[in-house]
Amino acid sequence: MITTNPFDDDKLREECGVFGIWDADGAAAVVALGLHALQHRGQEAAGITSFDGHDFHSHRAMGHVAGTFDKDGVIRSLAGRVACGHVRYSTTGETALRNVQPLFAELSSGGFAVAHNGNISNALTLRRELVRRGSIFQSTSDTEVIIHLVATSTYRTLLDRFVDALKQVEGAYSLICMTPEGMIACRDPLGIRPLVMGRLGDSVIFASETVALDVVGAEHMRDVEPGEIVIVDASGMRSVRPFSRVNPRPCIFEHVYFSRPDSIVGGNSIYSVRKAIGAELAVEAPVDADLVIPVPDSGVPAAIGYAQQSGVPFELGIIRSHYVGRTFIQPGDQIRHLGVKLKHNANRALIQGKRVILIDDSIVRGTTSLKIVQMMRDAGATEVHMRIASPPTRHSCFYGVDTPERSKLLAAVHDIQGMAEFIHADSLAFVSINGLYKAVGEARRADVRPQYCDACFTGDYPTRLTDQDALDCTDQLALTAERVM
Amino acid sequence: MITTNPFDDDKLREECGVFGIWDADGAAAVVALGLHALQHRGQEAAGITSFDGHDFHSHRAMGHVAGTFDKDGVIRSLAGRVACGHVRYSTTGETALRNVQPLFAELSSGGFAVAHNGNISNALTLRRELVRRGSIFQSTSDTEVIIHLVATSTYRTLLDRFVDALKQVEGAYSLICMTPEGMIACRDPLGIRPLVMGRLGDSVIFASETVALDVVGAEHMRDVEPGEIVIVDASGMRSVRPFSRVNPRPCIFEHVYFSRPDSIVGGNSIYSVRKAIGAELAVEAPVDADLVIPVPDSGVPAAIGYAQQSGVPFELGIIRSHYVGRTFIQPGDQIRHLGVKLKHNANRALIQGKRVILIDDSIVRGTTSLKIVQMMRDAGATEVHMRIASPPTRHSCFYGVDTPERSKLLAAVHDIQGMAEFIHADSLAFVSINGLYKAVGEARRADVRPQYCDACFTGDYPTRLTDQDALDCTDQLALTAERVM
Amino acid sequence: MITTNPFDDDKLREECGVFGIWDADGAAAVVALGLHALQHRGQEAAGITSFDGHDFHSHRAMGHVAGTFDKDGVIRSLAGRVACGHVRYSTTGETALRNVQPLFAELSSGGFAVAHNGNISNALTLRRELVRRGSIFQSTSDTEVIIHLVATSTYRTLLDRFVDALKQVEGAYSLICMTPEGMIACRDPLGIRPLVMGRLGDSVIFASETVALDVVGAEHMRDVEPGEIVIVDASGMRSVRPFSRVNPRPCIFEHVYFSRPDSIVGGNSIYSVRKAIGAELAVEAPVDADLVIPVPDSGVPAAIGYAQQSGVPFELGIIRSHYVGRTFIQPGDQIRHLGVKLKHNANRALIQGKRVILIDDSIVRGTTSLKIVQMMRDAGATEVHMRIASPPTRHSCFYGVDTPERSKLLAAVHDIQGMAEFIHADSLAFVSINGLYKAVGEARRADVRPQYCDACFTGDYPTRLTDQDALDCTDQLALTAERVM
Amino acid sequence: MITTNPFDDDKLREECGVFGIWDADGAAAVVALGLHALQHRGQEAAGITSFDGHDFHSHRAMGHVAGTFDKDGVIRSLAGRVACGHVRYSTTGETALRNVQPLFAELSSGGFAVAHNGNISNALTLRRELVRRGSIFQSTSDTEVIIHLVATSTYRTLLDRFVDALKQVEGAYSLICMTPEGMIACRDPLGIRPLVMGRLGDSVIFASETVALDVVGAEHMRDVEPGEIVIVDASGMRSVRPFSRVNPRPCIFEHVYFSRPDSIVGGNSIYSVRKAIGAELAVEAPVDADLVIPVPDSGVPAAIGYAQQSGVPFELGIIRSHYVGRTFIQPGDQIRHLGVKLKHNANRALIQGKRVILIDDSIVRGTTSLKIVQMMRDAGATEVHMRIASPPTRHSCFYGVDTPERSKLLAAVHDIQGMAEFIHADSLAFVSINGLYKAVGEARRADVRPQYCDACFTGDYPTRLTDQDALDCTDQLALTAERVM
Repeated sequence: MITTNPFDDDKLREECGVFGIWDADGAAAVVALGLHALQHRGQEAAGITSFDGHDFHSHRAMGHVAGTFDKDGVIRSLAGRVACGHVRYSTTGETALRNVQPLFAELSSGGFAVAHNGNISNALTLRRELVRRGSIFQSTSDTEVIIHLVATSTYRTLLDRFVDALKQVEGAYSLICMTPEGMIACRDPLGIRPLVMGRLGDSVIFASETVALDVVGAEHMRDVEPGEIVIVDASGMRSVRPFSRVNPRPCIFEHVYFSRPDSIVGGNSIYSVRKAIGAELAVEAPVDADLVIPVPDSGVPAAIGYAQQSGVPFELGIIRSHYVGRTFIQPGDQIRHLGVKLKHNANRALIQGKRVILIDDSIVRGTTSLKIVQMMRDAGATEVHMRIASPPTRHSCFYGVDTPERSKLLAAVHDIQGMAEFIHADSLAFVSINGLYKAVGEARRADVRPQYCDACFTGDYPTRLTDQDALDCTDQLALTAERVM
Repeated sequence: MITTNPFDDDKLREECGVFGIWDADGAAAVVALGLHALQHRGQEAAGITSFDGHDFHSHRAMGHVAGTFDKDGVIRSLAGRVACGHVRYSTTGETALRNVQPLFAELSSGGFAVAHNGNISNALTLRRELVRRGSIFQSTSDTEVIIHLVATSTYRTLLDRFVDALKQVEGAYSLICMTPEGMIACRDPLGIRPLVMGRLGDSVIFASETVALDVVGAEHMRDVEPGEIVIVDASGMRSVRPFSRVNPRPCIFEHVYFSRPDSIVGGNSIYSVRKAIGAELAVEAPVDADLVIPVPDSGVPAAIGYAQQSGVPFELGIIRSHYVGRTFIQPGDQIRHLGVKLKHNANRALIQGKRVILIDDSIVRGTTSLKIVQMMRDAGATEVHMRIASPPTRHSCFYGVDTPERSKLLAAVHDIQGMAEFIHADSLAFVSINGLYKAVGEARRADVRPQYCDACFTGDYPTRLTDQDALDCTDQLALTAERVM
Repeated sequence: MITTNPFDDDKLREECGVFGIWDADGAAAVVALGLHALQHRGQEAAGITSFDGHDFHSHRAMGHVAGTFDKDGVIRSLAGRVACGHVRYSTTGETALRNVQPLFAELSSGGFAVAHNGNISNALTLRRELVRRGSIFQSTSDTEVIIHLVATSTYRTLLDRFVDALKQVEGAYSLICMTPEGMIACRDPLGIRPLVMGRLGDSVIFASETVALDVVGAEHMRDVEPGEIVIVDASGMRSVRPFSRVNPRPCIFEHVYFSRPDSIVGGNSIYSVRKAIGAELAVEAPVDADLVIPVPDSGVPAAIGYAQQSGVPFELGIIRSHYVGRTFIQPGDQIRHLGVKLKHNANRALIQGKRVILIDDSIVRGTTSLKIVQMMRDAGATEVHMRIASPPTRHSCFYGVDTPERSKLLAAVHDIQGMAEFIHADSLAFVSINGLYKAVGEARRADVRPQYCDACFTGDYPTRLTDQDALDCTDQLALTAERVM
Repeated sequence: MITTNPFDDDKLREECGVFGIWDADGAAAVVALGLHALQHRGQEAAGITSFDGHDFHSHRAMGHVAGTFDKDGVIRSLAGRVACGHVRYSTTGETALRNVQPLFAELSSGGFAVAHNGNISNALTLRRELVRRGSIFQSTSDTEVIIHLVATSTYRTLLDRFVDALKQVEGAYSLICMTPEGMIACRDPLGIRPLVMGRLGDSVIFASETVALDVVGAEHMRDVEPGEIVIVDASGMRSVRPFSRVNPRPCIFEHVYFSRPDSIVGGNSIYSVRKAIGAELAVEAPVDADLVIPVPDSGVPAAIGYAQQSGVPFELGIIRSHYVGRTFIQPGDQIRHLGVKLKHNANRALIQGKRVILIDDSIVRGTTSLKIVQMMRDAGATEVHMRIASPPTRHSCFYGVDTPERSKLLAAVHDIQGMAEFIHADSLAFVSINGLYKAVGEARRADVRPQYCDACFTGDYPTRLTDQDALDCTDQLALTAERVM
């Protein structure tokens, strides 16, 4: 079997996007539009929960937002002026519908819905203790731990129980919650995953990226701050900051690849940052060549920046098909590299006889870099130089990003020269870690208190990794499970 | 819109059937066959859970057994030598998949699956208390209360926790449970709902009716007794009777309508009982007529009994279509009584000019009796006498049978004469309560300690009705709920 | 794999039913109801074509009427006051949608739709000639030959072209056709397949059986006569009889099995005829036994007749499940005869220790008779006597009935004694051919000019069998074909 | 309702792509890959027909190639070493499956399958005559006319009958046909639609564009020439040129928009031609501005050409979502221009305060140009200049391209100034017709014998338009039709 999307196969994956709106006509329809704009953050499943003043209504399904929430009657069934939603990417076979968010529980205080972007790094440890005390889990999602901690908290008000729960979890979380009384948005103390606020008339919106505000015509107000809990209800909006202050460390990979180029993250235009990385790369790793060719589509802004800085012309040397397929039967041995060609084809007439500089955002396993270098050579390129708009990816992420295990990361097992040989490039260079920090507007990485989470490049994790440490000692954390077909 | 099954619309509905097998090749396939034989006990949804020695596997779906468990790969996915299943009929809109059984939970002792036939009459009261203490419910099913009581019980062994849970619930339950160690079957102290045991080679089977044993070629051993807990595990089979002894009161309506005529219930052949009721009815309420006509199909055995006792010939005066449809558009006002005719048509050539005795098993709302009497007259019957093979149904059931509210029960608002007028019959008679007890082999109903639960006829409920009593005082039991589309 | 309908597997199959209505509100909805009542004549596919005065509208689908024509919007799309429809059973893999009727063609005179019950016995021969002259076929259906003969006829009026076409075909046909001007119904000169006329207010209806008239509340007027063409249009109704007169020979198997018991065929009540066959059988082949047991459901009327004539009591010894499934996985070798038990189960408590007479309508291959005799023995019957309400089926049908090839017909390869041994019955008897004719009201079979087509019993075919004769010489008739997945 | 693809809504549409392969392992799988590469030529439906030496096998379905031909078993069912396929875009409601190609007919010479790119401009006229003579059409496709002409031709060999048929049709056709003996490819005498030949090992391939050869790894041999019939069979490959010689006039719009940028059409690299048009446009219509912004994705090559020629930097000012949706519910009046934003979003941080030059390939109705100009202004652009990489589209196409009726073409009802006002641009310019001819390598348009079909720009149609002329006199060509739901 061959697939049409080999380039995308070798990317790190953001696992989630969230969107919520308080007090709007057609709230669920707005959420559907917002989630569609966040689809790049999770393509596997989507869900929306609304509240009509009396009942909660939910719809969750595997697949894209547009395939689920354009169905007759689905949006109509999600009544009410308050709604939140979630898009999800998941790595394992455990992609049952029961893991699709928003999660919902009926607490003694009433219904409680949660949409979560991030990952709780002590979820398994907390779960074992909760099960021991009689809690019954509906999903295998780490997010459900938060709900059971709220349900069993002995504090009196829901907000106190919520804070009580958050103080027990470690890791990354940008959360949008709904209760019968209001909407609660919050971001972990380090602010690892993004979360922004906007206004649309009198309605308040929370979303993972500003592009979701653009699409629904809302105004971008500000970020939800690291460690901030924002509560919106009938009495208005207010903030709580119950955590002790720490230096924020938002994920720098949002700038490299996860966020859309038309989003503003932490005050920076992603498009401009990526062009700046490309320009930085042209300065750090120049090469004498005829064409600058982006690996579509994520390499385009950096390639424009590289071309403008270097004077080497920017050209579309690889044409991307708009038609996404899943799998085709391999017709026979004589047809090779089909997976690559189905989605991307070399612009042979342009490349023939030329020295090309390929620009990509990152290298994970390296398998597709190898194919694309080969595609350039098959099309007649005389030299192929690869330039990467991020430092080498050497470490796994435990904060809501799907990373292969370390041994599969090309940069974890090879030096630059070895990587260049692996992908058969004439030369290979990555932007430096300080070059990357410069592109996001810092003078350089502050090594004592780094301004960003860059653990995938540096291995410098900003939180404890309780489950991971436990797993390193033993593999006894695995739970008895029901496999649902 | 018109439907093809108007006669069945006016029946009481058994809400569930259960089937489990311990230690068999293709356990899930055997369960599928057993559930197919129990399909008449619940047509709305079906589920099977298996255990392969390591993992539990479940598949649940709306619709018939044959439409779900004949799908390629479904049975194959239900690996293991132990499995149980459930068919379900449900009355409300809340027919979400999450209510389809077997229910499953991961307890600290490992996985726990439950299939339940019956109804817990204090479920809402228990649920409110459990939620208050932090339990989160996955379904709106009364069965889940049992699981949370087990999960939060402070006893040490699973069996002790299970008994602790059952001692808190009131009502009717025949349960089949699976744990990693074994299979547990039990029946409430009154034995309201049936449950039988069988053997197939070395495998042990539990099922709601003997017909399910017949279909899989198993031998009928005995009933699980009222108040008995049977445990089957690697060490063999054993019984526990943790409840104080009371007089059993199994449901007598199983003999009237719920069970299949080829089943043996409490030692009686259902077919023979129904023929005996018909014969009793011929003695109690004779009538001078030309033909005995059963209302298909449930009236057939009683009609044969009536005909044999009275000497009036048994004839098929109503032909039933084998092709079940759902709904058709009503083409215009000129076409009437279509719903009746689509599924049943009068055998006009037979009926024309005849005096007919119609035999049916029961009258609930009376709406379809009215239609069927009219169908006989339209076909030329000169007299139509209705004879009913049960006493008048005057009370609701709270033990796992779907009954309309009392005000909709024809016998609750009319005397026999009024009922005869309502359905336009020339005469109407019901078998007496003692006639019914005679047909099941008793001398008469023991009014102090009745041998059966006959509350639907007599209003004499054998248990407390805690939720019902609470509802009668207030309607505050309703829970905040998520509506899932 | 095991299936739930083994008894039905061994029946001859009527291949079609037709229904048409002229000038009615909601014409297509009435046709859907009529086809539902004719569902027993063809369960594989169904189609309806309507005409709204300007356009023809068609919907055809595999599956039952109720699964197709209860869908939202389907009936609404079939606009107009004129409509006809078709249900189809087909024997081969070639069950592509393109063979589902009504067939439609755009002729120079306008649209032309045809629904056909029967079989053209020189269709292949005619088709080869039409293809040679440039006609392009859309289907592999014999019916399409009629349409091409009409299209290429050199006569001027459509009616003349239609008659020209019919004069070239041989075999059995009951047709309902629609043109922009009117509806045309006709029956072949021998009247092999049935076709009746009815009235519903001012609307005219044609249908294969009277039961379809009953269901829609229409009045039965008369049969369309053998060789008659009835035209209904804006100017009223008129008849044409363009064929030379021959003695009609309607299919006698309609009385034995095909038609529903509540239909009137050729003036006879099918139910009464079947009871009469049973009574005749009791006289011709009596036996000393305890119970008369019908093989459900087709054996029931004959069993009642047999019981009433013989005095042996009629009992339900076999219980039929109402829940039809397709296939289940065979769980293991220890479970046998499952196919039989899934749909029919022995009423063991009744049969144990008894001598039983089984009544069935016919024996085709004999495989299921074998199973059912065994089922009786397994349930404890001491003797099993089989009585069949038709003569031995020894010959194939070429007039629209699906018959196995001769070598598979048990009666074609065994004498009665051999058949009894094959099915393991203590005795076996069939009604005589004259007994059958008596039951339909004739004194006896007129051997020179038989009153019915009884070729399946006698081998006396009423028409030439051109294609069959050609096939006997050669197998060169096979056509190059497109297999559509 | 709002849709996500507003920009694409306002394009001319190529209606078909074809691909065939002779003598290859897994022929159908290769065709599926080839069709996927041609998906941009028709997104509505796809079909493949194969020949296994004995039978033809077909599968056709609405939807994309990847959604149909990646299904388990579909490719497996299309057995054989010869196959051809078709992708289709269609404009009318008549998108029934029966119109999906390849069309197939059983002729006296055996099976005959046809895949057609183009449009027969006298199809209705020929069809009426064929129906008059008794031909029955299966589809409403113009292509079927060719098949009936072949079927009813009185010539003896299939090739003679095929040539006889083609000599009667006028218009545009690139055809791939399959017979039991071989594969036939041909192109109309003017060569209006493209068709190329390639080799993959010993297999011969025909395809609409070279990109389909690239994707399967085949070598591009040459174009099938205008008026050439290429026959491939067991004896090898040969050419026939039965038409009188005329000057070819291939469609110039293939260079402007239809073909993929990585295809070679008539010897020209499409990407290079589009860059050349952009450069020509920069010379013909310069403007003082800050950014050159392509309308994604079709405007990108021309924008690169414009930027390189003008020195104004190329930037991604519009970000295109990769996630295609269909329709969303409009949540309320406060949210406007959503259709545009769902698929494309302005890169606000880049555009704010800038003078931008937008580059698009063409303007059809102008409705989306209006929206995109507004999107630029909403994002803060101070000036918006639109430059179009083709001359004004003023005339309908009758050769297989979907064009709106003339009154809907903006350029047919407005002059350039009026168009600029309609779309609210500060300035608007189109490349000149001679500028376009220069970009494809000609000195200028030869007005007496133009080198290309440019009728959409000039109204100079290269063939008679028989159906169109007839329609202009009368609207009596409409046929009685069956509407199939």
